[in-house]
Amino acid sequence: MKQAVIRDLLPHVPAGVHLVPGHPIAGTEHSGPEAGFAELFRGRWCILIPLPETAAEAVGEVGRMWERVGMRVVTMSADHHDKVLAVTSHLPHLIAYTIVGTATDLEDSLKSEVIEFSASGFRDFTRIAASDPVMWRDVFLNNREAVLEILQRFTEDLTALQRAIRWGEGDKLQDLFTRTRAIRRSIIEAKQA
Amino acid sequence: MKQAVIRDLLPHVPAGVHLVPGHPIAGTEHSGPEAGFAELFRGRWCILIPLPETAAEAVGEVGRMWERVGMRVVTMSADHHDKVLAVTSHLPHLIAYTIVGTATDLEDSLKSEVIEFSASGFRDFTRIAASDPVMWRDVFLNNREAVLEILQRFTEDLTALQRAIRWGEGDKLQDLFTRTRAIRRSIIEAKQA
Repeated sequence: MKQAVIRDLLPHVPAGVHLVPGHPIAGTEHSGPEAGFAELFRGRWCILIPLPETAAEAVGEVGRMWERVGMRVVTMSADHHDKVLAVTSHLPHLIAYTIVGTATDLEDSLKSEVIEFSASGFRDFTRIAASDPVMWRDVFLNNREAVLEILQRFTEDLTALQRAIRWGEGDKLQDLFTRTRAIRRSIIEAKQA
Repeated sequence: MKQAVIRDLLPHVPAGVHLVPGHPIAGTEHSGPEAGFAELFRGRWCILIPLPETAAEAVGEVGRMWERVGMRVVTMSADHHDKVLAVTSHLPHLIAYTIVGTATDLEDSLKSEVIEFSASGFRDFTRIAASDPVMWRDVFLNNREAVLEILQRFTEDLTALQRAIRWGEGDKLQDLFTRTRAIRRSIIEAKQA
């Protein structure tokens, strides 16, 4: 994604202007200036993707701007950025959009109850699936390769679970469900929960 | 699931004892008495599944107990209950467990960053995927048929989206992403958000 942005933007940057690609990892499902609030960036990460030709002072200046609103700044390559975001952001959004779409297509009698009883898990997905449709269309088109690769892994894993359910292999289910708890603990320790 | 519980339990119920299957739809990813709090049930739904042979007074008595802790009570058939819960609860949990599992299997350099940058969407899935492993193993084994059916629909929908990303069909993505917003609005209106 960042690779695509850099490829498209760089030829149009005039001499003497410094391009410092990057973005904050913060926000809600709401868009626009009215959706902002004072603590939005506090303690969150901002990723900068300096190019080989980017002046170090320009990177420092942009980084300090984000630090001034409370962010922690990290730099990485465009390729690595695209992979990290595919896992942490793009796949979760794609999955959330899909499951809410699947529910939308249910027969009417079931659909109204999905809404009433959404507190049992479904609700968390609907918040993500209410994000800006145009922005997310462009995200998936521009980070196609990294998204398709992680999606392939996800589908394999889901198919394995489906098979375990069909054949009653409870041990396989319990093993996975136990392993996934560790990641939650790590996130709480990293203060991102 | 409720069908399986009723099938297993009913032969052991002595004469004169009334079986009123049901459960509250409320809770967090934490288990046990220490995880309770005073408002846990307030405004949430409790589903009761009366059998043909269940005395109406018994159903009414159990319903009033749940209403006394603030719940709204609804009755439905076991078959319908199993379908509704497969969509609203079991599929979301299975998906969340899978995506967190997929991330757990990433190479170490990527995995540590998935934890740091989880605020971009992934984090919401880790909360669900921290739920009790033994309880959820049993849920999937006991509601196998309804879970496999909704999972099949989900996989078809995800494959269609994957294809749209691969072939750059932005309109299809934007159409779905716009439709899914309506469900979120309905949930907010139903006061379950």
